[in-house]
Amino acid sequence: MSSENDFVKEIANKDEDWSQWYVDVIRKAELADYSPVRGCMVVRPYGFAIWEAMKEGLDRRIKETGHQNAYFPLFIPESLLQKEADHVEGFAPEVAWITKGGNEPLAEPLAVRPTSEAIICSMYSKWIQSYRDLPVLINQWANVVRWEKVTRPFLRTTEFLWQEGHTAHRTGDEAQEEVLRMLAVYQDFVENDMAIPVIPGRKTEREKFAGAHSTYSIEALMQDGKALQAGTSHNLAQHFAKVFDITYLDEDSQLKYVHQTSWGVSTRLVGALIMVHGDNRGLKIPPKLAPVQLVIVPIAPKKAREMVLAKAEELKTALRGAGIRVHLDAREEYSPGYKFNDWEMRGVPLRLEVGPRDIENNQVVLVRRDTGEKIATALPDLEAAIPQLLSAIQDNMLAIARDFMEENSFQAANLAEMEAIISTKRGFVYAWWCGSEECELEAKERMSATIRNIPLDQEAAGSKAPREAKCVRCGKEAREVAIFARAY
Amino acid sequence: MSSENDFVKEIANKDEDWSQWYVDVIRKAELADYSPVRGCMVVRPYGFAIWEAMKEGLDRRIKETGHQNAYFPLFIPESLLQKEADHVEGFAPEVAWITKGGNEPLAEPLAVRPTSEAIICSMYSKWIQSYRDLPVLINQWANVVRWEKVTRPFLRTTEFLWQEGHTAHRTGDEAQEEVLRMLAVYQDFVENDMAIPVIPGRKTEREKFAGAHSTYSIEALMQDGKALQAGTSHNLAQHFAKVFDITYLDEDSQLKYVHQTSWGVSTRLVGALIMVHGDNRGLKIPPKLAPVQLVIVPIAPKKAREMVLAKAEELKTALRGAGIRVHLDAREEYSPGYKFNDWEMRGVPLRLEVGPRDIENNQVVLVRRDTGEKIATALPDLEAAIPQLLSAIQDNMLAIARDFMEENSFQAANLAEMEAIISTKRGFVYAWWCGSEECELEAKERMSATIRNIPLDQEAAGSKAPREAKCVRCGKEAREVAIFARAY
Repeated sequence: MSSENDFVKEIANKDEDWSQWYVDVIRKAELADYSPVRGCMVVRPYGFAIWEAMKEGLDRRIKETGHQNAYFPLFIPESLLQKEADHVEGFAPEVAWITKGGNEPLAEPLAVRPTSEAIICSMYSKWIQSYRDLPVLINQWANVVRWEKVTRPFLRTTEFLWQEGHTAHRTGDEAQEEVLRMLAVYQDFVENDMAIPVIPGRKTEREKFAGAHSTYSIEALMQDGKALQAGTSHNLAQHFAKVFDITYLDEDSQLKYVHQTSWGVSTRLVGALIMVHGDNRGLKIPPKLAPVQLVIVPIAPKKAREMVLAKAEELKTALRGAGIRVHLDAREEYSPGYKFNDWEMRGVPLRLEVGPRDIENNQVVLVRRDTGEKIATALPDLEAAIPQLLSAIQDNMLAIARDFMEENSFQAANLAEMEAIISTKRGFVYAWWCGSEECELEAKERMSATIRNIPLDQEAAGSKAPREAKCVRCGKEAREVAIFARAY
Repeated sequence: MSSENDFVKEIANKDEDWSQWYVDVIRKAELADYSPVRGCMVVRPYGFAIWEAMKEGLDRRIKETGHQNAYFPLFIPESLLQKEADHVEGFAPEVAWITKGGNEPLAEPLAVRPTSEAIICSMYSKWIQSYRDLPVLINQWANVVRWEKVTRPFLRTTEFLWQEGHTAHRTGDEAQEEVLRMLAVYQDFVENDMAIPVIPGRKTEREKFAGAHSTYSIEALMQDGKALQAGTSHNLAQHFAKVFDITYLDEDSQLKYVHQTSWGVSTRLVGALIMVHGDNRGLKIPPKLAPVQLVIVPIAPKKAREMVLAKAEELKTALRGAGIRVHLDAREEYSPGYKFNDWEMRGVPLRLEVGPRDIENNQVVLVRRDTGEKIATALPDLEAAIPQLLSAIQDNMLAIARDFMEENSFQAANLAEMEAIISTKRGFVYAWWCGSEECELEAKERMSATIRNIPLDQEAAGSKAPREAKCVRCGKEAREVAIFARAY
């Protein structure tokens, strides 16, 4: 049996070997495991419980904004995928192909969906006839497959889980409203449930979704200073409507093409959660998403064991009744110290310690995962104290992540300044950009920094950028501030 | 715009053309649609909302019995699928194969999972080391693909959605207990939430799952007299453990193979719901699963429209607040009569009609979908009346389905008697069976009737079978009563 220190030593130090730390935490907290299938992971029960909590928070918001769930086929005939030129060009290199069904070769290969625009558009062209059929507001929870060369659990895997919204509207204005509405929904979920601050903004032409008119994203900053795109929302305009012939008869008796959007977030968010909140003791899960919000660890010498366990059981029942997700760790084969480490590794927000002396004093000790603070709490106060503490932890985690993002947001007036930052501290670099692809590309080639997005709130972005509105690379007059960063 | 009668005429009469009625209801109630992918359907929002309600009811029960959800890869390398001989023999003819990823041919083809035993066992052999790791109780919600030659929406599609439980245990007894526990969970869900009575029993050797030691099923009877297997639970014994090398060190320091189970239900259940409860006006959804439990149809001459709509809105808000799933159909372009038909087609359990006269009298009219009964209800009584009515409808639907099953349960002392029943009335035929495959096969060849299962409750089954315990085909002494039927 490993000692307390061995337990923590089993993961790399995050400041020394960040990549190793990341996979160690995933393995040690039993979030996921490698599978015998190239690039595919297994999401283990603890990791899946986090994803289920995320799904719940997102699904509720998606339904509250008027969307309904549906399910479309996993397979897309090659000819459908090829209809929209930019779309197929973007996705073809990543597609897994079915060429045999049963024991017969197929007449036409089937793509395993890398995203579902093509198959969904083929249905919309059937379903949408009149302006009365609009808007169509559909979401799908599904698995998708992209044949990736280099994979990392949660961040980039051949198969991953996501939701993809696909909507059709009467006007371009309505579609654009929807695009920004869903971006705001993502921001609300990621900030309030995941305790991760993000910057919403527009992607550049180079970085937009294959087939989209424009793409918007929310961008988060990981503790290693690299950015992670946490969600995207696309305005497809009429690109797909024209090739899939999705038309409606408008009130004025004119046949018109619909305006479409699509938007999605994926299991990638679990990777963000690890990389924003984790520390050298393991995961930290925000209380709103924690499968276990409070773990009870009984601390009992052998002769008091029965009495302490009985008290622990009683507390578990009472706290569950109060709506708190409680686990009682009654394992006999592990020491309390081992259990402390184990549940810290799993990121449980609160630990409750109870021993014979505590029972005598009619109290327990609560320990916060975020600060390590120990709080002796009288039993009569417990049910009121825990929700308050969970709420304080949630707020504190967001505040810490926000401070980190602020402290790691820099400005650069030219590429040399940018390079100095990117090569030492990384982080978000706010800089003016003239809008040319040439200038964008030079930052990428020189320091692997891409434009994450052009923040929607240009006023706030401007206040973080150099005073002179001149392009960071060519020095020409610039109208917009962009965020540059290295990214996952 | 179609008139009221046209609306209903648009579906076939179920007593004249059952197959056409089935697909008409699916299309007209917008449950699903055909897709451009051979054998794959699109589950439309209304159909998916029913499936979501089913998932919720099942997922709760699966978790209450101690299981956790996880997610395993969609793909299974050919070599893994081939490890268990019976398993591959059973599934190989139905597999869709990936042979190309990105633009490269694959060294080893990947099967799209037809079921996940092989991939899950490969992980269990890694995860399970000690008796302390047992039992492993994992469930997965997933899509699976089986290359079917003849497909029907919900009943048999190339891709379908399901849950599959996969558990590992220390002893054979524990595994068998789990097999029967989950069969009982399925029975509880299907009877209490879906209002469909079922017979739990054991499958014959011929009909068991490919690779299982024994298979159990719950069997339901459709209104056309054909049986439908509504859920299965398999005892895999050590078959997979031996080929995937899933061993644990027991307390006695011996290395032992685990005992496994697997069990599943699928979107097929939506098909059962249609075929057990539907009528010539369309779907009937049991209140527990209905996405809309009550639809409000305002009945207003033009001048009273505003007042009636305001009242309808007020009722909607109040009833939603009381936890009832309410929809207000405020569409202006359709007549009340059209709306009545529309929502009957969609199987909404209760309709609330409100007009100016009702408002004057401080009442509304409630109409039951199951009986057509109209109930004038004073407004102050409404919030109490609706849950009671919904509960009465739920009970009545189960009672009606149970009566139908009883009335269509027959007995046969020999194959001639059985054939007379199967070729005229169909239904469940209770008969003694000696246990030989030869006798089983003759019923199948002569009248396409298979043994659905050998009921667990042999006492009850015996009371429905002929008094003399002699095999229905060979006349030899028989120990068990089996249910014969044609089946989906």
